[in-house]
Amino acid sequence: MTRLLDRIDRPQDLHGLSDEELQTVAQQVREHIIDTVGEIGGHFGANLGTCELAVALHSLLDSPRDKILWDVGHQAYPHKVLTGRRDQLGTIRQYGGLAPFCAPSESVHDIMGAGHASTSIGYGVGLKEGMRLLGRPDAGKVVAVIGDGAMTGGVAFEAIHQAGGLGTPMVVVLNDNGMSIAPNVGALSRYFNRVRLNPRFWHAREGVEGRLAQLPGGIGARFERLGPQLKESIKAFWAPGLFWEELDWAYVGVVDGHDVAALRQALRAAFAAARPVVVHVATVKGKGFAPAEEGGLEGMERWHAAKPNSIADGAPVPSRPAPASAAAKPPTYTEVFGDAMVAEVRRDRRVVGITAAMNSGTGLSILQNAEPDHYFDVGIAEQQAVLFAAGLALEGAKPVCAIYSTFLQRAFDQIVHDVALQGLNVVFAMDRAGLVGDDGPTHHGAFDVSYLRALPNMTLMAPRDEAMLVRMLRTALLIDDGPVALRYPRGEGVGAPLPEEPPAIEVGTGEILSEGRDVALLGYGTGVQRALEAAELLSRRGVRPTVADARFAKPLDGALIAQLCAEHELLVTVEESVLQGGFGSAVWEHCNERGIPTPRIIRVGLPDRFVTHGKPALLHAEVGFTGEAIAERIRVALGVSGEIVAGA
Amino acid sequence: MTRLLDRIDRPQDLHGLSDEELQTVAQQVREHIIDTVGEIGGHFGANLGTCELAVALHSLLDSPRDKILWDVGHQAYPHKVLTGRRDQLGTIRQYGGLAPFCAPSESVHDIMGAGHASTSIGYGVGLKEGMRLLGRPDAGKVVAVIGDGAMTGGVAFEAIHQAGGLGTPMVVVLNDNGMSIAPNVGALSRYFNRVRLNPRFWHAREGVEGRLAQLPGGIGARFERLGPQLKESIKAFWAPGLFWEELDWAYVGVVDGHDVAALRQALRAAFAAARPVVVHVATVKGKGFAPAEEGGLEGMERWHAAKPNSIADGAPVPSRPAPASAAAKPPTYTEVFGDAMVAEVRRDRRVVGITAAMNSGTGLSILQNAEPDHYFDVGIAEQQAVLFAAGLALEGAKPVCAIYSTFLQRAFDQIVHDVALQGLNVVFAMDRAGLVGDDGPTHHGAFDVSYLRALPNMTLMAPRDEAMLVRMLRTALLIDDGPVALRYPRGEGVGAPLPEEPPAIEVGTGEILSEGRDVALLGYGTGVQRALEAAELLSRRGVRPTVADARFAKPLDGALIAQLCAEHELLVTVEESVLQGGFGSAVWEHCNERGIPTPRIIRVGLPDRFVTHGKPALLHAEVGFTGEAIAERIRVALGVSGEIVAGA
Repeated sequence: MTRLLDRIDRPQDLHGLSDEELQTVAQQVREHIIDTVGEIGGHFGANLGTCELAVALHSLLDSPRDKILWDVGHQAYPHKVLTGRRDQLGTIRQYGGLAPFCAPSESVHDIMGAGHASTSIGYGVGLKEGMRLLGRPDAGKVVAVIGDGAMTGGVAFEAIHQAGGLGTPMVVVLNDNGMSIAPNVGALSRYFNRVRLNPRFWHAREGVEGRLAQLPGGIGARFERLGPQLKESIKAFWAPGLFWEELDWAYVGVVDGHDVAALRQALRAAFAAARPVVVHVATVKGKGFAPAEEGGLEGMERWHAAKPNSIADGAPVPSRPAPASAAAKPPTYTEVFGDAMVAEVRRDRRVVGITAAMNSGTGLSILQNAEPDHYFDVGIAEQQAVLFAAGLALEGAKPVCAIYSTFLQRAFDQIVHDVALQGLNVVFAMDRAGLVGDDGPTHHGAFDVSYLRALPNMTLMAPRDEAMLVRMLRTALLIDDGPVALRYPRGEGVGAPLPEEPPAIEVGTGEILSEGRDVALLGYGTGVQRALEAAELLSRRGVRPTVADARFAKPLDGALIAQLCAEHELLVTVEESVLQGGFGSAVWEHCNERGIPTPRIIRVGLPDRFVTHGKPALLHAEVGFTGEAIAERIRVALGVSGEIVAGA
Repeated sequence: MTRLLDRIDRPQDLHGLSDEELQTVAQQVREHIIDTVGEIGGHFGANLGTCELAVALHSLLDSPRDKILWDVGHQAYPHKVLTGRRDQLGTIRQYGGLAPFCAPSESVHDIMGAGHASTSIGYGVGLKEGMRLLGRPDAGKVVAVIGDGAMTGGVAFEAIHQAGGLGTPMVVVLNDNGMSIAPNVGALSRYFNRVRLNPRFWHAREGVEGRLAQLPGGIGARFERLGPQLKESIKAFWAPGLFWEELDWAYVGVVDGHDVAALRQALRAAFAAARPVVVHVATVKGKGFAPAEEGGLEGMERWHAAKPNSIADGAPVPSRPAPASAAAKPPTYTEVFGDAMVAEVRRDRRVVGITAAMNSGTGLSILQNAEPDHYFDVGIAEQQAVLFAAGLALEGAKPVCAIYSTFLQRAFDQIVHDVALQGLNVVFAMDRAGLVGDDGPTHHGAFDVSYLRALPNMTLMAPRDEAMLVRMLRTALLIDDGPVALRYPRGEGVGAPLPEEPPAIEVGTGEILSEGRDVALLGYGTGVQRALEAAELLSRRGVRPTVADARFAKPLDGALIAQLCAEHELLVTVEESVLQGGFGSAVWEHCNERGIPTPRIIRVGLPDRFVTHGKPALLHAEVGFTGEAIAERIRVALGVSGEIVAGA
């Protein structure tokens, strides 16, 4: 039997269907995602929540003339299935396959390529005002679909404010899958249970009430007769929408996000209004997959993403314990960092960890469990994470902001203006530095060395292995006169034994790992392992390289650099970040300013382009960030014979 | 007769005074500011609005144990006067004098050194939670004073959200001097007059009303009997506070911000509450100075800052027309940019200018007057300015984001993720690039070359004079495959005649201005004038330098660089931005990657430290960014005799 879904090759194929048929299509989209993602792995829970929404939107709209902006594309799998990519879903997140988020290069139906949250509304205001500016105000409808989590991002607020002020005719679908938020009764009860203010405050308010009582038309008099209990209930009634109405948006809600007919009714009305309208939709993360839907918070979090082969025939596959003979994998940098934070808090009660809605992604979930008072989650609000840390530091605490390299870009001004300029000791722990793999260009941490190195007062470090990460965190917390940033990669460490009592490192000192001649490889962070691999390959060609770990990109180890320059005819810097203004340039700048003669310099790092998604090994090979590629460049530079090829 | 104010040497001296005496002190603070700032120039209007507020706060608090955070310190002059700096006010904004904003290095009463808006609440949350974390929750009260303008900044919203969630016991004073906002009646009338939605929306809402009707205790029934008119009035009654109450803040307002007794009563209650409280205060910008207060919007804007010698005996001094014999000054870059935007809009109706609350500062006020439909002000919301521009560009418009270099840092992630990664042609016009002078380190544009050069797809330009600015804007608008950033300085141009029909520049081409030998000076932006000055001085010592204008920092002019390297023994790069990852490093990176042999390189630029405030000439001399300093470095490097000294 053919599924209805198999006849949906483009979104317009939904247009003739009845509510009931559309409801069926939505369920088939869900089953398709469960089957596919359960087998190959990928974002899961959020996508199961948007099946009916995607169907309802595309059934009413004419994409891509009408534009649907999916805030953070990991809720957009149903949209991908409905827009001609049904049969390619199995390639998602693979090198050369479908992109993990929306991607304009992949489909005309993907309007923006967002992997960072909270951007869809602002983008939508621009699209719609652009139509007005260019004299074609009715060139298409614009709708932004944004989750309740992304609403905490300040830029979303900025956009709501602008659209409200302009009266931009666009629709926001607030996809609310938070368990603590909505339906209305929840807001009511929150209001009723609110801790009341000191009575004196009511006097201030009563002054206003007095003025209200003087209103014409009997309104004021009627108002006065209301008891406080009724006032509360009225406030609560308006509560879900008032935030929006205050900012001049019309509010519609709460709509059942799994009822296609209800969604279509609300959306149709919203699209007909010539003003900003928000449609507040309640969805269930993991809808239709019992272990996620019924597993409470834990189930939702567990099934945010599915591991490959974790689901068969619509049900979870019990994970088999690893055979006892298999070597235990090294822990991830993320886990090591989380454990180290617990140890640091136990050493020094001033230490505190801060995350911006990346509790388990940063490893701070470990700290939260062990030392909840020393853990803060500010939500998707990187700017506030850094300002909050600045205030904590000023008060004498030792804040560690654990934010992925790419997301820390959001807080750049706070780092410059509120931390570095103030000389405050805030530690930035940047996980996911370098190429992150499947999540692709929106998530690669490619720029942090360049954008942080430009700032005065900044100390920059990167560990070559997980043991060094523990020591560097310790070191960072001992510094007390300015900000410190640590960058480390996604994934597992190299198996280095972790120190029980990590010795601090002297600031601005590197380390020679092997003494050679001819060529010096100076690695930074993950660049050190690549340098060691290259050295090993070169040694088979009779080249004996020196390998050093710079450990600091700022301040640099001047003595080490002078020695490497003096004793080698070639200096190779290796870093997993863009070369423009990167670590390699820092080494040259250092020598240039001090008149230190340099040998030939080769800089290895990330290229001046955005890198695609796929397994890190594939991406590293693509950009030449492998031991083989580095060794080959050096071999050629030194004029040694015998090409070095990958895998040889 | 001694003023009461003359006895206030520290804020605690206010503690014993009566409301009436405090009101007198506030008025004396105002007169002191009018006299002083009217003579020396400086921020004016906002400071006249906060005299009573500063007195009321310090009369109740014990600073610095209790901490007052002034959001953007240009409303903090009264605070400075009350905290031991009364007699130094005349030195404000001068080199070596009082800082233009709050400065922790200047006074223990200045808690944070903010020149960018919207940061005070977030900082305050950190301070207060830090006290709790460190086991001294009552170590001091925390109050953030923030203007209504700064409330549009997303990070303020993020902070409100966090504090509401945590129940952080702190106070925000919302200093509302907007004429269109508050008092309560304004909000009421806004609600009553609102354009109503399509009736169908009300059906969606009625579903919720149905549920409300089922509430126990007769509340629901009573609610049903209310007519829509009453519902509106109730909504309106709650409106000013509901935005805050929604986010779990207690709201007190609206309080007359020029009535010390009323302020003290409201603030005393707010400080007594053990939860987040906002006190909404209405103030008048320019209060007590008739030309500002009574001049409407124009008066307020005109007197935001006062020019030196613009006030005597409390009244404006009529500005004397310049004598006809005096040479007309060249226009500022800001004016030239504003005029050029008008011309571009008239050439191409797709062009549109965007400002983030810097209408006249960016020169876009000229565009607003001439072509209002092609002008947008998003408020203090740089992130949204860039997202909005991204959406406009995607729709086919040609957006120009005119944002000061330092403020553009706020939008770094949007530039990376939403513009560069998407390959959208958004133009960034960065006024105030380089050292801005009196406004000091929070406002210097020192980092943009480094943080933008790291990004793929980016084109970077800087004009050497105002004529080149016009040509570069033209060029930027002709590019259609990626973002372009122009940087140009604060202040007047050099008097270059402006082209009527500006010819575009070929992307990635520089220009040789004078051919010489021995040494090549390669300037970028304002560096070109410095290079020309240095060359002139050197020529008097018999050195004949080549001087070139790079025009582009990305992509570079490879042919020009190769020629300069081949024909000179010394290459000097000159740029008004930090050297870490800057233009000079770009030149070296270019040569390094292509195997172009370089002569000795000297890079001239801003140092790796934050630079103070004062007249640009003083600051330039301090950091060695002058023709003399550059010439002297070159003279020494070339071994030519005869020291070159400033002014010689």
